[in-house]
Amino acid sequence: MIYTIAINVMPLKDLLDPQGKAVMGGLQNLGLKGVQDVRIGKRITVQIDAENESAALSAAEEAAKKLLANPVMEHFEISLL
Amino acid sequence: MIYTIAINVMPLKDLLDPQGKAVMGGLQNLGLKGVQDVRIGKRITVQIDAENESAALSAAEEAAKKLLANPVMEHFEISLL
Repeated sequence: MIYTIAINVMPLKDLLDPQGKAVMGGLQNLGLKGVQDVRIGKRITVQIDAENESAALSAAEEAAKKLLANPVMEHFEISLL
Repeated sequence: MIYTIAINVMPLKDLLDPQGKAVMGGLQNLGLKGVQDVRIGKRITVQIDAENESAALSAAEEAAKKLLANPVMEHFEISLL
């Protein structure tokens, strides 16, 4: 069966996110004064052919650990769609 | 009150996603044979100071429409965290 899984990869909280800071400035310049913090990460959706849900989730976790997320700078979350 | 909102910006289904295709090849080379499709987008988390939930969500939608998503190539989803 084919499962669709989302993997969210975000910069760690303790690290600066210069791209996010730039976007925050842009939003404030557009008049959105309430914006206080912006962080930008990646969202990856994967379709995985697996026997069951837990096999699909563990394949997604392996993908995140081996290729998609850099644990020095990023953390990830996995969810079944 | 401060609301944390996630904005997911993904490439439209009908468009090619060459970055996703490259990652799919990489994952298959790493031995994850079950991976059938990969699409890569952005996930933006925003902290918005607003009077209530619906004001925060509409500010996030304005941010997505004005700056974060390109409607020619991308669609977006907003969710309160």
